[in-house]
Order: sequence, then structure tokens, then C-alpha cells
Amino acid sequence: MKKIYTIYGLNGFNALLNNNEYHIHDILIEKNSYTEKHIKSLNIAKHLNKKISFISTNELKQKYNNKRTQGVIINFTGPIIKPLPSFIETSKNFGLLILDQIEDPQNLGQIIRTSECAGIDGIILGRNNSCGISNAVIQVSQGAFFTIPIYEVANINQCLAILKKENFWITAIENGINAKQWNEIDYSGKTAIILGSEGKGIKKINLKNSDFQASIPMQGKINSLNVSAAVSAILFERLRQINFKK
Amino acid sequence: MKKIYTIYGLNGFNALLNNNEYHIHDILIEKNSYTEKHIKSLNIAKHLNKKISFISTNELKQKYNNKRTQGVIINFTGPIIKPLPSFIETSKNFGLLILDQIEDPQNLGQIIRTSECAGIDGIILGRNNSCGISNAVIQVSQGAFFTIPIYEVANINQCLAILKKENFWITAIENGINAKQWNEIDYSGKTAIILGSEGKGIKKINLKNSDFQASIPMQGKINSLNVSAAVSAILFERLRQINFKK
Repeated sequence: MKKIYTIYGLNGFNALLNNNEYHIHDILIEKNSYTEKHIKSLNIAKHLNKKISFISTNELKQKYNNKRTQGVIINFTGPIIKPLPSFIETSKNFGLLILDQIEDPQNLGQIIRTSECAGIDGIILGRNNSCGISNAVIQVSQGAFFTIPIYEVANINQCLAILKKENFWITAIENGINAKQWNEIDYSGKTAIILGSEGKGIKKINLKNSDFQASIPMQGKINSLNVSAAVSAILFERLRQINFKK
Repeated sequence: MKKIYTIYGLNGFNALLNNNEYHIHDILIEKNSYTEKHIKSLNIAKHLNKKISFISTNELKQKYNNKRTQGVIINFTGPIIKPLPSFIETSKNFGLLILDQIEDPQNLGQIIRTSECAGIDGIILGRNNSCGISNAVIQVSQGAFFTIPIYEVANINQCLAILKKENFWITAIENGINAKQWNEIDYSGKTAIILGSEGKGIKKINLKNSDFQASIPMQGKINSLNVSAAVSAILFERLRQINFKK
């Protein structure tokens, strides 16, 4: 049986209506609280013969406590996780993000969102090595998973070996003795950037098999940048370098 | 009466024990689940005559559901919010972050944490213009508020006028017609960077009174970078520029 995911809000609703890869299972709408945007989307959904049911405001509040649903909940199925393809033939500045042991759904969702905004071409997760794509991750990512491919691999280290054969340079973001400053690495061209969780970091074998190590030097006393903030710093540095070389 | 804040976890506990500005009101400890680190901190707390009480694991779970308490909850008072001082005499690359209408505690907490890591010298909030410093903000900030000053002003626009007189250059991060790319602005020297919420942006009058506008161009389709991710991109670009000029 296919896994059923849930997403809230009009943006997700419209993204699903306009997407051929994903299939809407059913739609739940808050009774008597439509805006024009709701009505337009609902008409499209009816036209496409999607199953729609209604829910009272009270029941919605009870069931979806504290969620910003905008009065619409959509259950859907689809290929969020894809198997790793070959990247031999790619565009000039093809960039991948590899996540090693990221277990916090809030962080994973934010990272997916930031990666989409920063022009990353794909995100690679370890199968038994992350929190996976849950409804919480989907919600935080704000629909970014519709447009950025997410790949799952059984073994990140084997994946690094494949990427090297396909001419990627691999940079691990980690505070180590051999680490350069984050902005001293060239992230243009075919690049794969690997980050670990705040607690566990990157697995030793994956560190060892990276071409470079880069660190973001902490300026304060708490000495712990959130991993999604680190992703943002690195990915926009990559974008700066690519724009600079144009 | 002074406002009592709550913080969880050993890092916060130790930060409070080592801080003269803040006052521990009372400490709640999970019964029979000490680690060596707990015992060391508890001994210090006893030595300082702090009020300690104990709570069973069950009661802790019920009361502090889903919080990562590490078995320790501290209620405290202290000057988290400070009035704006004069910045006439400051170090060379003094940097301030101004937040206009940031209403999400998760975002505000993350921004405080990232700012501390990126070497920002102070954060300015509008008094009736943000979610304020709640316990949720404190928790997400991971104790960064202990080391980075947070200022509150009645009126951000008046604050901008004062900062200009004190020789700050003010950059608004906003997608406008006159906006340059985020990395084309010089953030070294005395700089104040202003950001707004994702929904409401920066107030028009504050935009008008900024010296520069900068935007982070979106590379994907969702077109909405989380504000705390935007802060990270901008603040580490500032740090890159400062390091580059050294």
C-alpha cells in the first residue's frame, strides 16, 4: 500500500492540484469559511473528481490543534522519495546536499525549504540514518519537496564513492583540524556538500571519504549553530560564488 | 513584579549559575535520574543557596510534555530586554540586527541563536511589533540571550534615525525594485541590518529610511525563504566580508 501523506494550507493544495506526479487521496475543508482562493481551488478539485468532505470549525480545531491549516487538509500519495539516479550528465554547477544523521523533523523540513530557495539540485538522505519524510517535515518544508528531488540511499559512504566517480567534489561541513573556512572552498561546478546533525555530526567514514572539510567559525559563546542555519550560510555562499564567476 | 522566565536543560542551568546579571528563582530536578553533570551543577546550586525541589519522572512528563528538559527546569528573573544605549563609541565592525514585525517565536529564537554564532553585537526589537521574548523564544535560542544583548525600542523608525546619527549604514533585506543582490552590499564597519516577517515584511516607513535595500534572489519555485534562514545567509556574508578585509 502506498504511504498517505498529509499537507495543510492553500499553497500545498494548489501545488498538488497542479502536479501530475502526486495523487490527491481526499480533501477536508472547513465548513463555511471559504475565501475566493478556497473556492477557486475547490472548483478545480471538483472538476478533477477529487473526493471532498467538510468539517466544522470546532472539529478542525480539535483534530488539527495548533496547525495553520487555512481551513484545508489534503491527504495524498506520491513519489516524494526517489532512488538515486546517475548524475553523469548534468548542468555546469550541479549541486547536491547530503544529510548524515539528521533526526529532527523541524530541521529537515527547514533544510529542504532552504535548499529549494538556494538552487540545490537534490537532497540525499540515508535510509536508516534520518528522521525520514514525515508529515511534520512536509509541513515545515512549505511544499519545497514538490520541486526539489529527495533521494534516499542505503549507505551514504557508498553514495560518496559513486558521486566521486561521477566527478563530484565532496565537502564535509565539520569543525576539524584540517577544516578550511567555509568560504575558502570552491562550491561551483559539480559539488556535493555533506552535513551531519548537531549532536552526532558526520560519520567518521564519510568524513574520511570527503575531499574537503569546511567549518563555520563560531563568533560567540554558545558555540552551536543550528544545522539548518549552517545549511543556509553554506548554500548562499555557493550561490554567491556561482554568480561571481558568471 | 519581575517577570519570571523558564528554561530547561543543563546548558541553561549552568549558564545561569555562572551569570551575575540573572537570578535563579527556583530549580526543579527530576528525581533519581542524575548524571554526573547534574550532580556537579546541583552542588554549585546548593552552595549558592538556590531553592531546589524534586519532581517524579511521571509528573515531569505530564507537566513538560515534549520538552527536552534533560531532567532540569529553572525559573529565573533577569534583564533579558535592555533599553537602547548609545553606540557612538564602538568597535570597528559593530553590527546590529533590527527585527520588524517578527511574530513567530520559533523564528525569533533561531534568529537570536544564529546572530550570536555570527558575531552580531545586538538585536533590536520593536516593543509592540514582535512576539517578544517568551519562554518558547528562550528555549529555541539555546541560551544565546545570555551573551547577545537584546534591545527593545518603542519605535523602530525613530531608532533608525538615531542609528544614522551614530554613523551606522542601514540595509533593509527586502525584494524591491531598488534592491541590490545581498552580497553587493558592504556590511563591514558600523552596520545595521533590518529584516521583516515573511508575511508582513518591513514597514514602508522603515524601508524608506534605510540606506540600502538588498534581496536574496530565490532560485526555486516556492519563492519564500524562512526569515531565520535569510538572517543566516546575510550574517555569514557579513562575516565573510569582514574576514576578507582583515
